[in-house]
Amino acid sequence: MEVYLDNAATTKPRKEVIDMMNKALVQYYANPSSLHKKGVEVEKLIKTARKQIAKALGSDEKEIYFTSGGTESNNLAILGSLEGNKRKGRHIITTKIEHLSVLNVFKYLEEKGYDVTYLSVDGDGKIDIEQFKNSINDDTAFISIMYVNNEVGTIQPIEEISSILKSMTNRPIFHVDAIQAFGKIKFNLKKLNVDLMSISGHKIHGPKGIGALYIKKGTKIKSIIFGGNQELGIRSGTENVPGIFGLGTASDLFKREFEENIKKMAKLKFKLLEGIKRNVKDIKINGTIGENSAPHILNMSFKGIRGEVLLHSLEQDKIYVSTGSACSSRKKTYSHVLREMGLCEKEMEGAIRFSFSPFNTEEEIDYVIDRVTYRVAELRKVIAGR
Amino acid sequence: MEVYLDNAATTKPRKEVIDMMNKALVQYYANPSSLHKKGVEVEKLIKTARKQIAKALGSDEKEIYFTSGGTESNNLAILGSLEGNKRKGRHIITTKIEHLSVLNVFKYLEEKGYDVTYLSVDGDGKIDIEQFKNSINDDTAFISIMYVNNEVGTIQPIEEISSILKSMTNRPIFHVDAIQAFGKIKFNLKKLNVDLMSISGHKIHGPKGIGALYIKKGTKIKSIIFGGNQELGIRSGTENVPGIFGLGTASDLFKREFEENIKKMAKLKFKLLEGIKRNVKDIKINGTIGENSAPHILNMSFKGIRGEVLLHSLEQDKIYVSTGSACSSRKKTYSHVLREMGLCEKEMEGAIRFSFSPFNTEEEIDYVIDRVTYRVAELRKVIAGR
Repeated sequence: MEVYLDNAATTKPRKEVIDMMNKALVQYYANPSSLHKKGVEVEKLIKTARKQIAKALGSDEKEIYFTSGGTESNNLAILGSLEGNKRKGRHIITTKIEHLSVLNVFKYLEEKGYDVTYLSVDGDGKIDIEQFKNSINDDTAFISIMYVNNEVGTIQPIEEISSILKSMTNRPIFHVDAIQAFGKIKFNLKKLNVDLMSISGHKIHGPKGIGALYIKKGTKIKSIIFGGNQELGIRSGTENVPGIFGLGTASDLFKREFEENIKKMAKLKFKLLEGIKRNVKDIKINGTIGENSAPHILNMSFKGIRGEVLLHSLEQDKIYVSTGSACSSRKKTYSHVLREMGLCEKEMEGAIRFSFSPFNTEEEIDYVIDRVTYRVAELRKVIAGR
Repeated sequence: MEVYLDNAATTKPRKEVIDMMNKALVQYYANPSSLHKKGVEVEKLIKTARKQIAKALGSDEKEIYFTSGGTESNNLAILGSLEGNKRKGRHIITTKIEHLSVLNVFKYLEEKGYDVTYLSVDGDGKIDIEQFKNSINDDTAFISIMYVNNEVGTIQPIEEISSILKSMTNRPIFHVDAIQAFGKIKFNLKKLNVDLMSISGHKIHGPKGIGALYIKKGTKIKSIIFGGNQELGIRSGTENVPGIFGLGTASDLFKREFEENIKKMAKLKFKLLEGIKRNVKDIKINGTIGENSAPHILNMSFKGIRGEVLLHSLEQDKIYVSTGSACSSRKKTYSHVLREMGLCEKEMEGAIRFSFSPFNTEEEIDYVIDRVTYRVAELRKVIAGR
C-alpha cells in the first residue's frame, strides 16, 4: 500500500482535471488572444473556467484573475495593491507565521522603507485580536493574513478581522492568503468582505503552475508583470490554458463535493490522531484541534525522534509525509511557524505534518497508524540503546 | 482541410510533450521540494528537463531558470537585473519594435526615472548599428534587444551588438528576447556572449504557462517574485512540473530536428510567398525576405483589403492566420512594429501574418495559395463594385 499524506504540499491532479487539461493541449491549443475562431473558442472556455472558480469562491467571474500560482497571487496582491494605492499609507500588517510568499514580500517592503507590524501568535498558532486592533493606525495601508496555516492548519479569525475593518473610515486593504483554505474550510467570501484573496490550483487536486487572485470590484491594483495586457492588464502573458482549464475543473468538482470532502478529511485526521494517541506515548500536537483547525492538516512531534528520521522511516512503508512546509523543507533551518508558536528546538526538530485529501481512505489510515506505531517504537528503541 | 498558420502566436503541443506532461500529472505529482522519495524523484526529472533545455540552448544547466512564460522571463531579466545592479547606471536601451513584455517594462522604468533610448528600425524592421553605438554612454546599464521580431520575423544583428559590447570596460548587461528565435534560427549562445536570454515553451510546440530565462554565470540578478526560494531564490513558487517536463521534451526534440525543421519552415514560407506572388497582384511584403528573416514568419499586405477581413474570410476555409501579434490583436490599434517600419495606415490595416511550423505540409500550402488567391480576388471584386 502507498499512502500519500503530503496533501498540503501538493495534491495529485484528479482524472477530470487531467482530461480537461488534455483537451487544452490537444484541441484547444490556440492563443486565446488570436482573432480567429480557434482563438475565440479558447477564450470562451477560459471564461467558463473563470465562472467555475468564481462560483466555488463565491465571487463574480470578473473578480477572478489568473496567475502562475499561489506565490504570484500573494505577490501581486501585496505589491500590486501598494503600488496602486501609494498615498494610502506606509504601515502594513501581517503575521509572523505567514507562508514565505507573503513573509518575504513584507521583508522586501520593509527594506524599501515600509513600516511593518508582524503579529505574534499564541501556542496554537492564532493571532491575538487585541494586538491586531492595537497595531492599526492612521497610516495602515495594507493587511495580509493567511486563512489557514500551511504547517499546522490553524485557522485565523478572518471574519472577526473583517468586521473590525468594516467600521473604519480609511479602511486598509485586506488580503487573505486562502491557499490552504480554499476547498478545505467553509467561508462566505461576500460576507467576509476581504479585498483580495489568493488561491492555488495544485492544493485542490488541480495542476501546478496556476493560481488565481480574487480582486474585489473597485480595488485599486497595479500589475507587477508587464506585457500584452492579458487579464485586463492585471497579469500579462499568454494564458496558461491547460492550467486554467484544470483549475476551473478542480474548483467545480470541489464545489459540488465540498461538504462531504471536509467531513471526510476531518474524519481521517481524527482517526489518525486517535489511533496514534492510543498506541504511542509522549506525543505533542503542534497547533490546535477542533473548530480552529483545518480538516486536512495534523502536525505533531514524537518525543525523542527527529521528524526527518521518522519521515524517511515511514517512506520505507511507502507512507509520504512532511516535516514542515515543502518550500522550506530542504533547508536545514527550523520552521518559523513552530518557532513563533513557542516550540523548543527538540519539538521543532521532531515535527511531522500529516496532510489529508478526500481521496485518502480509512484503510490507509489504519495502515499509517500501524506503521507509525511500529516505526516510532523502533526508533525509540535505537535511541534508548545508545 | 484545416491549416493552422498562426504558429508565431502559439503552437500545438507535440504528442511527446503531452505524454511527458501526463507523466507529471499522473505519476510525478509530488512537490519537488518535499523531502520524501516521491519529491526527490520529481526533482531529478526537473534536472533532466533543465539539462535538455541547456543542451538545446547551448548553456550550462545551472544557467537555466524556469519562469511562467516568455513574458515573465523578459520581466525578470529586465527588472531583476536593474534591481541587482543599482549602481551600474540609469540609462537603458531597447528598440521601438520589441514585444510588449519588453516595451511595457521599459515604459514602466521610464516612469520610474530611468533614461531610455528606444532604437528606431528601418523599413525592414532592422536597427541601425551606428545609432546603437552612438546611443551607448557611460551611464548605460542595460540593453534589451529581441532576436526575431514576432510580427515580421526580422532578425536583429545580435552577434554584431555583442561584439561591440565585448570591447567595453563598463559593459552594460545584455538581454536578448529569443522567444521567436529559439528553435527557429541558428545561433551560438556561448559565442554571442549575452548575459540573459528569454525563451518560451508554447512557441516550440511545448506547453503554455512555462518559460525559462538563461542567466549567464556571474550575472547579478534579483528576484521579482518572492517566496519559498525555489530556482535558487531567483523564482519562488512551487515548480510547474508538467510545464517544465513539457518544455524539456520540446527543447530536446527541436534540438534533434533543428536543421531539417528550419529548412522545412523556410521552404514552406517561400512556397507560399511565390505562390501568392504568382497569383495575386498588388501585394507588399512587410519586413524582409532572406537571411535577415526568420523562416517561420511571413507578413504581407494585400492592397485594398483589410487584414481582419481577409483573416475572417480565410477562416471560412479553415485557414488560421493573424493580423499582428496575438497579444495586441484584440485591440483596435495599429501595430507599433509596422508603424515604426514606416508603413502607412492602409498598409498596416492590410497586414496579415502567416506563421509556420515544421508540421505544416506542402499540401497545406498549396491549399492556402489557392484559397488566398480566391479570397483576395473575391474581396477586391466587392470593393471595386462599391
